[in-house]
Amino acid sequence: MALALFTDLYELTMMCAYLDNGRKERASFELFTRVLPEKRNYLIYAGLEDVVKYLEEFRFTKDDVDYLHSLKLFPDWFLDFLKEFKFTGNLYSMKEGTPFFPHEPVLRLEAPIYEAQLFETAILNMTHISTLVASKAARVYSVSRGKILSDFSLRRTHGKDAGMKAARSTYIAGFSSTSNVLAGKVYGIPVVGTVAHSFIMSFETEEKAFRAYLKTFPDRAVLLVDTYDTVKGVEKAIEVAKDLLKGGYTLKGVRLDSGDILTLSRLTREMLDKNGFRETKIIVSGGVDEYKVDELLSKGAPVDIFGVGTKVGTSSDSPFVDFVYKLVELGEKPVMKTSSGKKMYPGRKQVYRFDGFDKVTLFEEKSSGLPLLEPIFISGERVKKLPSLSEIKEYFLEEFTKLPEEIKNIYEKRIYRVEISDRLKALYEKTKEEIEEKEWM
Amino acid sequence: MALALFTDLYELTMMCAYLDNGRKERASFELFTRVLPEKRNYLIYAGLEDVVKYLEEFRFTKDDVDYLHSLKLFPDWFLDFLKEFKFTGNLYSMKEGTPFFPHEPVLRLEAPIYEAQLFETAILNMTHISTLVASKAARVYSVSRGKILSDFSLRRTHGKDAGMKAARSTYIAGFSSTSNVLAGKVYGIPVVGTVAHSFIMSFETEEKAFRAYLKTFPDRAVLLVDTYDTVKGVEKAIEVAKDLLKGGYTLKGVRLDSGDILTLSRLTREMLDKNGFRETKIIVSGGVDEYKVDELLSKGAPVDIFGVGTKVGTSSDSPFVDFVYKLVELGEKPVMKTSSGKKMYPGRKQVYRFDGFDKVTLFEEKSSGLPLLEPIFISGERVKKLPSLSEIKEYFLEEFTKLPEEIKNIYEKRIYRVEISDRLKALYEKTKEEIEEKEWM
Repeated sequence: MALALFTDLYELTMMCAYLDNGRKERASFELFTRVLPEKRNYLIYAGLEDVVKYLEEFRFTKDDVDYLHSLKLFPDWFLDFLKEFKFTGNLYSMKEGTPFFPHEPVLRLEAPIYEAQLFETAILNMTHISTLVASKAARVYSVSRGKILSDFSLRRTHGKDAGMKAARSTYIAGFSSTSNVLAGKVYGIPVVGTVAHSFIMSFETEEKAFRAYLKTFPDRAVLLVDTYDTVKGVEKAIEVAKDLLKGGYTLKGVRLDSGDILTLSRLTREMLDKNGFRETKIIVSGGVDEYKVDELLSKGAPVDIFGVGTKVGTSSDSPFVDFVYKLVELGEKPVMKTSSGKKMYPGRKQVYRFDGFDKVTLFEEKSSGLPLLEPIFISGERVKKLPSLSEIKEYFLEEFTKLPEEIKNIYEKRIYRVEISDRLKALYEKTKEEIEEKEWM
Repeated sequence: MALALFTDLYELTMMCAYLDNGRKERASFELFTRVLPEKRNYLIYAGLEDVVKYLEEFRFTKDDVDYLHSLKLFPDWFLDFLKEFKFTGNLYSMKEGTPFFPHEPVLRLEAPIYEAQLFETAILNMTHISTLVASKAARVYSVSRGKILSDFSLRRTHGKDAGMKAARSTYIAGFSSTSNVLAGKVYGIPVVGTVAHSFIMSFETEEKAFRAYLKTFPDRAVLLVDTYDTVKGVEKAIEVAKDLLKGGYTLKGVRLDSGDILTLSRLTREMLDKNGFRETKIIVSGGVDEYKVDELLSKGAPVDIFGVGTKVGTSSDSPFVDFVYKLVELGEKPVMKTSSGKKMYPGRKQVYRFDGFDKVTLFEEKSSGLPLLEPIFISGERVKKLPSLSEIKEYFLEEFTKLPEEIKNIYEKRIYRVEISDRLKALYEKTKEEIEEKEWM
């Protein structure tokens, strides 16, 4: 899908008005949040790969220009200009998988103002969904105590792209696998699956359904045991597993999808162990989120694998975050928006990570700590190879481990320390005064 | 994007196990909800067009089959079978734009069981997002009192597909336009746009920004007046509008995006009118949902157009609905799932709409009322041309008007009357008994 028109109309009308008024100064836009959702102490940045591909391939097709022409809105010189247009700017970004906090730019795009503005909508759209799901998934990971997490969200994510991004973002944020086969093919994520209730129901008896499935997948099968009565389901699973053993295969697992999971998982574990099936895993699915995982594991539920679906794939308790893409510098001049009581800092910035806190500085300031923003494009040319998905995951795991434990609290609001450098504070005050003067002009 | 692998792995393993066990009976799966979200009295069905395209184009590419081969999970005969596989079944569906209620099938797919099962995940994914947004948008429409609604959600919808579907679904459910240019191109929806704060800020003064924008778009411009001080912004808009008049153009509108909208919109209207700009529209954006629209309009706020964004595009107060795709008939035998206390009705069904209530019957039952499910595919062949987007919108508007007013209450739960026919009730009881016997087998 050609994505040049995947934007709000006003990005194009502004582009046209900028050009028409001879406005071609360099502008810097930064992507950040001013505030975290109530139930988030951190966000996990993701979606850069999509943005990089978008910028690299950005072209208006002939069809696109014909469509714009049909709107009878734009002058011909502008449509001609679009035909040759491509991304020529600089892009700085944090690495995908980085935990970040309010007022920290995760990305900065620098280009002539008519160009830098144009990409706003698409960059917001692409980073928003990936960040949203990675952030929710990290919360589940933070309470998973080494248990395996698998993405089962595909059926209720918001459309096809979200389904793909949910698999990718959960994998970055500590999940091990996905049920989404296309995500397996496209991203190389391990794919997993069991059976559905409809399969069990479609056979005359539960036992026949189990035997049928094991006939086809003797070495890979996980049996769904709660279609009728879970305890009887486990009994039958054990019976068929004994026969399976004769063929040299051990039953891989049983899945519980409903009922009192704490009690049922204990009972199931006991029954499996008593019959010698200590290797058979217990998989739990159905309404799983960080609260359910934490509750079950804190009470010692013997669950080996969680299938995590809708609540993570839609980030249902925070289905959006306040991601914004704001003008911070124009020409050489730092700028900011002051209205509506939402504070932001002017100027091109860098974020330095220290042990347990961050510092936001002017980009050109020197500081100790690890700088998080790095160049990806310079003058439209890629200067950085992006990491593989496994590398992103590794990086997330390292960075997430370093986060203070209290910030990972899933129940209570905790504030991570983000310092603003003295020079940036001074610039904020200065810019604020200038704007107050400007309002009277 | 080839979508055959856009599915949960278990759909493919079940397909393989069905075939391996000689299971080829005809199965019917119905798509429905068992319960509405707390804040929904109705849902609006959408997404059929996507499903139809998916089924029509369904093929496993060579790449897909190669990937599945690489998983070392499936036997060769199955992979060979997939190479030739295509949709051969029947599809029945309600029309897009139909209001529906719990236990009413919106769609039924009938095919050999291994085939009917396969499409579950994709059908759920495609109908879920479109229905979700159409349902939320209809709530906004229901309180809009003839004012114009425009979709501004693109930047925070969950990815690219959701961005497109949000534009389409809001348009179906009574919105007039979208900011999403690609949705304009692809679906023919009128596109609209104003300017962003960054544009205003990028000029030395607000007035210069207004003049620059009007220079380029004298006949189409909507000025954003709240970047600094809204009242002063309106004053400046009026000044430039007076000059614009000399060129023969009237200022189309001003946009308010922050602050006390009730007070500001009244003040703005007054100032515009006093200066003779009675034709200039007031556009309001920023956190708009059904509650904000209703509050403003019930207090008489003189708003002409609402730009509706994130809350509708993500259906933020109900970011998912309980859409399920369940086996209801196998061979000639009606079936249902009883576990986990979630009631459903067995058998192939029809929904009849009466004046103010519906009746769910067996498919072959005769009833008065308007039958809502109609055949789309028979034996894999399309038997119905789908309506155009404008026709779908027209249909929605007609059907929505017929809904009892109390059901459209956006504040309180109201239950629409859905009768279950006597024959369906009897079938439910009979099937329940049979399942209870089966559990003991």
